[in-house]
Amino acid sequence: MSRERELPAIVLVRPRNPLNIGAAARAMANFGFSDLRVVSPHPPVWREALDSAVGARSVLRGAKLFAGLAEATADRRFVLGASSLKGRRPRLPVRELPGLSAGEGWAVLFGPEKTGLGERDLASADAVLRIPTEPGCPSMNLGQSVAVVCYEWASRSHARPQAEPARIDSAELERLIGRCAGALGKLRYRPALDDGGRGARLRRLLRPRGVSPGEAGLLYEVLRRIEELP
Amino acid sequence: MSRERELPAIVLVRPRNPLNIGAAARAMANFGFSDLRVVSPHPPVWREALDSAVGARSVLRGAKLFAGLAEATADRRFVLGASSLKGRRPRLPVRELPGLSAGEGWAVLFGPEKTGLGERDLASADAVLRIPTEPGCPSMNLGQSVAVVCYEWASRSHARPQAEPARIDSAELERLIGRCAGALGKLRYRPALDDGGRGARLRRLLRPRGVSPGEAGLLYEVLRRIEELP
Repeated sequence: MSRERELPAIVLVRPRNPLNIGAAARAMANFGFSDLRVVSPHPPVWREALDSAVGARSVLRGAKLFAGLAEATADRRFVLGASSLKGRRPRLPVRELPGLSAGEGWAVLFGPEKTGLGERDLASADAVLRIPTEPGCPSMNLGQSVAVVCYEWASRSHARPQAEPARIDSAELERLIGRCAGALGKLRYRPALDDGGRGARLRRLLRPRGVSPGEAGLLYEVLRRIEELP
Repeated sequence: MSRERELPAIVLVRPRNPLNIGAAARAMANFGFSDLRVVSPHPPVWREALDSAVGARSVLRGAKLFAGLAEATADRRFVLGASSLKGRRPRLPVRELPGLSAGEGWAVLFGPEKTGLGERDLASADAVLRIPTEPGCPSMNLGQSVAVVCYEWASRSHARPQAEPARIDSAELERLIGRCAGALGKLRYRPALDDGGRGARLRRLLRPRGVSPGEAGLLYEVLRRIEELP
């Protein structure tokens, strides 16, 4: 397992200021990160990002652009959403940045400058990553929060043994959730809900705990039997 | 000992971009720091710094402006100069950011955006503080490096017991060095050197180790006797 593979992808969700994309890329390069993903930046201007990306042009050149958060995290096994929470109580488990232990195939989401990650964005995450800021001034600058997370990860977390059991990636989990929602509909589970509503319930249930490849295989067996019912 | 007093002063040395002063103030506010000092910014424009200092106006309003680095650190007992070193070998001891233990009355210096701290700036420091960046991209953005240092200090270092023995502050150390240099001159130590040259040698000898109040008292006794020689 190379060190490269242990470092998570950094996902910027709807950043508005290209300088912040560059600043994030620079912090990533400072700490050896290379996998930058950007979800629908606004405006979609990349050239300006170069100005603030001193020494990080290769990170920016390799950055991938995605239309949505689901596509950006499809190949990830565990997704953290960085948030100061600001008094909100998330439905997700909360992890504190110091002391975080991490496995392979992770991603960390960072929200837009003004608002941070919203409820809908956090639905794509498995846990909230809280940077321990002061209650009186919790909201960090985007580039600075990326720098702090990359510093912490590179200087400490990667040295720890993998703490998470194997789990299927986000794309497979979403396929599984879709099949389960359909099967539940067929079984007339909560008829008032459509498949989307059932999917949201399943997502809240399954994402935080994760689904192992073995569990997924078993579920698919069961689903096939339900789908074959007359 | 209150937590407030344990957090070091942040000293920005000749920053050129007011937005970076604001970014530094914001990161300080995020992690509970309040003592911001700025040495001869260029240009000396404070109003613009407010734009990037979301939630950190009180830190900026309380910031102190100094004409020189000696004045900015006069009341500090231990001064760290943040530097990536970039292959340079400093004459000072090097401390790595993770694992740093810190005492009261400290300061951390951050150099100008383009060049970082120079040799002359580091002459006012007791040790280099190295943030563990990648050799291929060592140089950090100013606001991001302040954020990483404040995060590390607030989340870990302040919780440790004071590791440094008591030492006189920078202003008193400089007075002592000046008196010693004069006394050495009177004793015809290295006649080719002037007092400034002798002072530089003494500074390299005394700063890294520090001088305790008791040692200073003894040295003053000896100095008085030398100064009274015919």
